[in-house]
This record gives sequence, C-alpha cells and structure tokens, in this order.
Amino acid sequence: MPAPFEREPGIARLECTRARAFDIAFAQGLTSGDSTALAAAIAGRRVIAVSTPTVDGLYGDTLRQLLETHSAQFCFSVVRLDERRKQLPVVQRLCRLAAEFRLDRRGVFVALGGGICSDVVTVAASMVRRGVDHIRIPTTLIGQIDAGIGVKGAVNLAGQKSFVGTFHPPAAVFIDPRFLATLPVARIRQGLSEILKMALIRDAALFELVEEDASTLLAKRFQEPATARRIVSRAISLMVEELARNPFEDQTFERLVDMGHTFSPQLEARSGFKLSHGEAVAVDMALSCVIAVELGLMSTHAARRFIALLERVGLPVGSRLLSAELCREAMACATAHRGGNLNLVLPCGIGQATFVGNDALEGGVLERALARLPRFAAAISLENAARPPRLQEPLHGSAAF
Amino acid sequence: MPAPFEREPGIARLECTRARAFDIAFAQGLTSGDSTALAAAIAGRRVIAVSTPTVDGLYGDTLRQLLETHSAQFCFSVVRLDERRKQLPVVQRLCRLAAEFRLDRRGVFVALGGGICSDVVTVAASMVRRGVDHIRIPTTLIGQIDAGIGVKGAVNLAGQKSFVGTFHPPAAVFIDPRFLATLPVARIRQGLSEILKMALIRDAALFELVEEDASTLLAKRFQEPATARRIVSRAISLMVEELARNPFEDQTFERLVDMGHTFSPQLEARSGFKLSHGEAVAVDMALSCVIAVELGLMSTHAARRFIALLERVGLPVGSRLLSAELCREAMACATAHRGGNLNLVLPCGIGQATFVGNDALEGGVLERALARLPRFAAAISLENAARPPRLQEPLHGSAAF
Repeated sequence: MPAPFEREPGIARLECTRARAFDIAFAQGLTSGDSTALAAAIAGRRVIAVSTPTVDGLYGDTLRQLLETHSAQFCFSVVRLDERRKQLPVVQRLCRLAAEFRLDRRGVFVALGGGICSDVVTVAASMVRRGVDHIRIPTTLIGQIDAGIGVKGAVNLAGQKSFVGTFHPPAAVFIDPRFLATLPVARIRQGLSEILKMALIRDAALFELVEEDASTLLAKRFQEPATARRIVSRAISLMVEELARNPFEDQTFERLVDMGHTFSPQLEARSGFKLSHGEAVAVDMALSCVIAVELGLMSTHAARRFIALLERVGLPVGSRLLSAELCREAMACATAHRGGNLNLVLPCGIGQATFVGNDALEGGVLERALARLPRFAAAISLENAARPPRLQEPLHGSAAF
Repeated sequence: MPAPFEREPGIARLECTRARAFDIAFAQGLTSGDSTALAAAIAGRRVIAVSTPTVDGLYGDTLRQLLETHSAQFCFSVVRLDERRKQLPVVQRLCRLAAEFRLDRRGVFVALGGGICSDVVTVAASMVRRGVDHIRIPTTLIGQIDAGIGVKGAVNLAGQKSFVGTFHPPAAVFIDPRFLATLPVARIRQGLSEILKMALIRDAALFELVEEDASTLLAKRFQEPATARRIVSRAISLMVEELARNPFEDQTFERLVDMGHTFSPQLEARSGFKLSHGEAVAVDMALSCVIAVELGLMSTHAARRFIALLERVGLPVGSRLLSAELCREAMACATAHRGGNLNLVLPCGIGQATFVGNDALEGGVLERALARLPRFAAAISLENAARPPRLQEPLHGSAAF
C-alpha cells in the first residue's frame, strides 16, 4: 500500500552502503600460462585484456592462450603507456573499445602490465557501464607491491599528477614473482623504493631483510635469495593493512603510505617524468628523513642508515630540481589534496612514522633540511664505498642523535 | 611487532565498505536567493557551479549571489549541454576547470540545471581527486523527480547512451518546485512521463492524482493545483524507496525503475536525440503496456487508461522508428547491461509490475504488440477527444481482459 504523503521539507534520505572485498594471491603459473585462479575468474566472461608493447612481447602470447581457452570471448589491446600518456584520452580509448566489443556488465578487464597499465584500466573499468570488474596482473615490482594492490586508479590532468581518477576495487590481483625476472634492474629499483617506504613507516624487520640482501635482490631481480618472495609478500600485507584502515580515504587524511609522496609528485612532474615515480619517492624519503632529523624525530644514525640503503640500491637521494620553492608548491598541492592539512609523514626512526603540519616546516626547517641533504648524501656515498652497513645499531628513536 | 610471514598463496584480502547517505529536501527559497540549507552546505568551501545558458539567464545571478555570500571562493561555469554534447569531452572540461581553480578535496560542485547538467557534474565530481562532493539543484521536473535523485551519473559514448559513468551519491539534493514555473511545457511533459512511470510500477493513487489534474498540472507548470507538490514529493519518495533496495545495482539486475527504459535508449539514439528522453520513455511504456496485454498480464482497459493519460498530457505513444529490429537491438543492449538477462519490466495493471525474460517476447508477441500499438493509440485518441477517463474501473489485474 502506498505510504501517506508526509515527508516534507526533508522529502527523503537515501542511505547506500557498498561492501567489496578482493584477494591478492600468488599465481605462480601465470608466466608459464598455467593459472587455475585466472581461469576461474574469467570463465565464461567477455574479457578485454590491456597490456603494453614490451609486456605483450614477453607474455602476450601466454595470456592470449589462457584467454582463448577460458574466456567466452576476448580482445587484446596493446597500448603504448608512460606517465605522459597516462591521461584521459587513453581511458576514453579503452571505454570506446568496451563499447565496440560490447562488453556486458559481467564482462571484465584484465590489466597485464605495470602501475600505469593498472591505473588506466582501473579508471576505464570504473566508468564502463558505471563500473565493471577488472583483474590486475602486475608485471612490475612496484605494481605487485604498491600500484596494483589498492582500490585506486588515476590519470594525470593539466600537469597535475593523478588529478582525476576513481576508487574502484579490483575483482582480484594475481601476483607471479617470475614476471620480475625479465624486468630491467631500474624498474626493480623503483619497486624497492616503495618496499623501503613500507619498511620505513611500519617494519624495521623488512628493512633489515632488504638491507641484508640488497645487491642480490637487485641483481637477481627478486628471483633470489629465498627471502625475495617473503619481502614481496610482507610488503603487500603491510600495504593491505594500511589500506584497510581507510580504503576510500574518507576516514582520515592522515595516511602513513603517503610517506615519500608529498614532494615527489611535483618532482616527477617538473622533471617531465624523466625522474621515475620510484626515484622521486626515494628523493622525497631522503628529504623526509633529514627533515625528521632537523625536528629531532629521527636520529642522524637512522636517517643515514636509511638513506645509505637507498643509495646502495642505486636510487637518487637528491635532485637539482629539489628547491624550497618546489617543496612549498608541493606542500600546497598536498594540503589541498589532504583536506586542508599538510599531514606530512615523517619517520621516527626506521619502522615508525608520524604526521606533522605545515607549521612544523617553518622557521627555516625546510631550508636547513634542503641544505643538509646533499651533505648527508655525500657522506653516505663515501661510507657506502668504504664499508658494509652497521646492522648492530638501534633502528628506532633519536637516542643516537 | 611485525606479524610472521605466513600468508601464501592467498597473500591478503582487502575488505572495504563505503557507507554514504544524503538528503533530498525542499529548499523553496532557492529561486529567490534565500536558502539556509544551501548556505550551510557550501559554507567556507571552494565551489564550482555548473549551469546551462538558459538556466543561467533565469537563475544564475541569484545563485551567484548565494555563492558570493556563503562560499570561500567560487567559479561559475556556463556550459551548453544537450544529449549530443553529453560526452566525455564536457566531463574532461569540468575536470580541467577543477584543476585550474585548484578545487581541493573539501571543494564542491553545484549542478544548477536539468538531468544532463546533473549527469556531467556527477561524473566530473566522481573523478576529480577520485571523488569530491557535489550538490544537485535540479531545475527541471525530470531532474527533480528522477535524474537528480539517484546516485548515478553517465555520459554517452560511441552512440551508446549512458555507456560510461559512475555511481557517486550527491552530498545533497535541493528541490525548489518554483524553478518549474519557467520551464517550457514540453519539459514538464517529460517529467510527467517519469512520474507516470513511478505510478505505473508502484502507485495507483499517484496515477489517479495525475489523471485528475493532468491539464492543470501541465498548464500551470506544477505551481498548481495544491496536489502538485504532493505529486513531486510522492514521486521522489517512491524513487528513493526503489533506489534504496539496490543503489549500486549490484544486488540484482531486476529494477522496477527500468520500466520504460528498455526500448527507449535505442529510440532516443536513433532519432538523433530529437525524441527527448521523456518522450522515448512514454513510447516504451505504451509498448510495454501493449506487450503486457498480449501476455495477459494487464487488462486492455488498464492499458488503455494508462496510454490515454500519456496521450492527454501530449506524450507520444508510438514512433515510426519503433520497429521489431530496433526493439531486438535494444533488447540485446539491455540484456548486456542487465547481466545477461533482459529483465523487461512489464505492468500487471497500474501500480504493479513484474519482470519477463527474452523468451517471453518470442513467438510473435513483440511483433503483435508492435502491430497493435498504433490501433490502441488511434482508438484512444478518439476516446480522449470524446470523454473524460473512467475513474471507477479497476486499476489492477487482467480481470477485464
């Protein structure tokens, strides 16, 4: 029976809750074309696979074989992608492809590639029919432990990195560490930058694992030593724990995983994306450590030890673009993006971090840190050349400062 | 303390739930520049208002005055919009404006206009910084009772209506029925089409209210009679009730509000959008009634009575574009959009509806209904000219069939 007409002036209230969940799972057979997990996920569905020329050359045929066997029908789109092309036109192209391919609402995108591939596919999948499923198969280290894990996707607009995007959880994320075997060392390095970020904010043990085998991890592209897989797994678990607190970033603007992501977007953009994301994050983390030292949050020793490991794996810890002007511009952008507060993440030793506001960097703190960073880096370079890292010293606190 | 590294091969599971709620409220002072509700909603925030040339000419200054007084800072964008322009480039333009205006994460879009304005603003707001707030001030009847109410926004792509979009609940919807005073009668008619849809699927009493005062409602543009506001309020409440069951369309693909929305998207598109959305929905509903008669779901009398009211308010109940070929194409599209099932909504009398699958229209049912529709319409035209509707007869069931 119709209800009486009583609801004025508040006519109605619409409450809508959306629950989602997805698994991040190892799927070691993917590189060799054998994955029951992927087979089950795409069974009987229309699939649009998206990859990049390099990944397609290495693994395209293997994935095509899997799609041919298990999907209802598929198309395979190879898109040239880089940070400069990560813009709305690529997203629109994928949406148009979905319209032409008649992707239905049970259809699914598969992203086979790195973080940028995952980003554009996430945004496109979120838009097609107001949201269809997507499966991520990250082929880079940064994709496997960071970009491919979360519920976000974004593209650049008007010179602003990741200005437009979406929160659109994937249906699943499949991790095959064997993809890393064919990755250039420079890309492994970028992933290490994000792994070291997780270590810096959460986990001294993870830092030590990397510190112990840094050269091997890099040289063997995470296929060895035995700890490589543990490192990947741990970094993923930590990231998921952090994301789970605030997956849609609507609970708080204080996010530990923003460590290294305050100055780096500007740095990346100003370099014309010649500085990679992981490299820019490394520079940002190095600066953040020195700021933390300036503020008495972190010991000089811990900062040196962290920056030393960045250097040892070949990540930059400074940049001629890194000026007070760039930093303040970046801080303004971050403040706008973090609801009006800077919420700069600073380490309190390795494995712990805290947040500070805009005012913490006033009174010359930022300028002193910027001036001090190159001296830190130079000293560390000499040390790195001369001796192995000192593992016996304390990781936390500013006791040694 | 770090947890042990035990999570393999399922490395981690991310569960993410997002709860949203918003109010749809009368805000009668809006047309005269007096609204405490809007003032409170934008207080101290950066605002991008979006409107269309016609609405801007009528109400732009009033809104600008409100924004000037209450927002932190605002920009006012007047965009020429129609169904053909409802595409990604307009959305991109609004996103670019947000980047240039430096809309922060607490910033808010305000859509002052009809359903298309609401659509493009919803999509843009969902994308900027992965989602900022938007407030809808629908200025058309269809906007106030349908397009502006839900959590959806979409634009057209590759000739497919609403192919890309988002679920992005507004922060608030403010309804001022006085906006309708300046609306062309043709646009009132379109809104009536959606009101009659709600009546057809849910509420015989609402149908009777409209039937009783159809000419006055139309001529006086919902400013009179006294029931006008009750009709608007009732249509909104019913819509919210329907949406609340399945706001993100992930619970079921059976949606009563899809009544009139199976054949109409194709009809609209094939007419080059010369046929308005409300008109196309009216034609679709008329056909749906005749199909329901063919299937014995609805009495000829109830179908005639419903179609007669569509005709009396000046809505089309047929189209030379309405062929079996178009219908089957539309059914294929709807099936793709509804997870592989047609889920055609058919009336079982006025105020009740049910769902049927693709096979229900086989065996010549669709063709017979298409052939019968013009005869229905012609008979009704004669009746409408000769006599008032018979209110005493039963509205439900096929007893009179």
